[in-house]
Amino acid sequence: MPNPALQLTPLPNIPLVEPGDDLVELILKALAQAGIQLLDGDILVLAQKIVSKAEGRIINLCEISPSVQAQQLAEQSGKDPRLAELILRESRQILRVRPGVIIVEHRLGFVCASAGIDHSNVIRPGEKQGKEPVDKPDPKPEDWVLLLPENPDASAQAIRSRLETATGARLGVLIIDSHGRAWRMGTEGVAIGLSGLPGLVDMRGWPDLFDFRLQITQVGVADELAAAASLIMGQAAEGTPVVHVRGFPYPLREGALNELLRPREQDLFR
Amino acid sequence: MPNPALQLTPLPNIPLVEPGDDLVELILKALAQAGIQLLDGDILVLAQKIVSKAEGRIINLCEISPSVQAQQLAEQSGKDPRLAELILRESRQILRVRPGVIIVEHRLGFVCASAGIDHSNVIRPGEKQGKEPVDKPDPKPEDWVLLLPENPDASAQAIRSRLETATGARLGVLIIDSHGRAWRMGTEGVAIGLSGLPGLVDMRGWPDLFDFRLQITQVGVADELAAAASLIMGQAAEGTPVVHVRGFPYPLREGALNELLRPREQDLFR
Repeated sequence: MPNPALQLTPLPNIPLVEPGDDLVELILKALAQAGIQLLDGDILVLAQKIVSKAEGRIINLCEISPSVQAQQLAEQSGKDPRLAELILRESRQILRVRPGVIIVEHRLGFVCASAGIDHSNVIRPGEKQGKEPVDKPDPKPEDWVLLLPENPDASAQAIRSRLETATGARLGVLIIDSHGRAWRMGTEGVAIGLSGLPGLVDMRGWPDLFDFRLQITQVGVADELAAAASLIMGQAAEGTPVVHVRGFPYPLREGALNELLRPREQDLFR
Repeated sequence: MPNPALQLTPLPNIPLVEPGDDLVELILKALAQAGIQLLDGDILVLAQKIVSKAEGRIINLCEISPSVQAQQLAEQSGKDPRLAELILRESRQILRVRPGVIIVEHRLGFVCASAGIDHSNVIRPGEKQGKEPVDKPDPKPEDWVLLLPENPDASAQAIRSRLETATGARLGVLIIDSHGRAWRMGTEGVAIGLSGLPGLVDMRGWPDLFDFRLQITQVGVADELAAAASLIMGQAAEGTPVVHVRGFPYPLREGALNELLRPREQDLFR
């Protein structure tokens, strides 16, 4: 019997997101326009950027006063001291610093560059409608940056809950970002928050075809799905920051980012 | 305009592969049975295991005499000294050793556990047809192991070339394995050989939506596709070791594993 296919469909017509926008409304509208009706087992994958923007995690560097530690970090890395200050605030630990590179353990527990703070594709508040931002001191347009969501698992949970109520379907919601990797070139989509789907699937104890035990024991399925969705989202534009997934081959269950984070003391490569 | 969907379809009816089997024939037959006609831009993703088996990269540990270095490595790791010997032969460098764990730089250049040598789902030659293996000294059934293909890029190239000749379509072929990662739990599908598709896509210099430069510069698209295919292949059985991909969102071009390997001197986490 053939396995069913895995199908990833980027939703067209998600507009540029601004702080305070209602993502669930935007997603439901885009689904309707695409003619997609959500079914039990479907998953929606969201780019971190639109979640962060909707949650207002945008900040202008002109508001930041760098600490002494941030100034040292800026000197070592060549980065803006105000950005270095934000990286410190968003991190538990600085792991590596080189010219142009700051690798940290983010406060959310994963290892990434620049604490996931994003400089590209950041819409300046009010810019879309030509409004002037009024409560920010002299912000330069190139100084807007975007922090990761405060709690991406909770963001995913809130979005999922409303989507399930609206559609009656049992869904999963996955929030992804693009991270660099040890050992390999190029970024790859990874899970930074999830609700309603497994992070890991545990294969321990499953017999292989010849009744030996499997050597591969735990599969990072949420990261594999993040990579798949990232591939089809593309990177250059914000046009398709939501991907609809049908055919995820594992049963949905409650899940959390934490499943995917290797405890520091078990990590041989920090 | 909507982006087209990315669709991954596992091919049913790939039989258990034995040394000397013709993978291209098996794939063409399975495609025909699934009613899939290959089109320009399609990609076939193959599990490393079937490529290695077809290429006869199976070996019984009873044939291996461990060196002194292998005996030391076995002692440190708790692994079979004969397996340790094979790991050494397949590796450029041993990076970490802990009880139960040997992480190496494989001779092919990537970092992985146990040099990618696989113990599960290894069919013993002759077992399928009840033949007795005659040229091996007293092999125990649990001692058969599988090495990675000698040159996975070349394997992918050879398979692609014959598939293109047979179908007239411009194709990509990707050979994948499952690797553990630094920092994160769970294995993930990764590229170990490719032909006819990009390993990396370089976004440097692409403008973002607001005409700044993109921060994300290179995307590991072949690894993202490997993760996607791995998700739908599953891990427990060998039933669907070939996945047909339609809708890969980047132009096909010549590519190689080497694009995805971070040069040792640029790697902050070895």
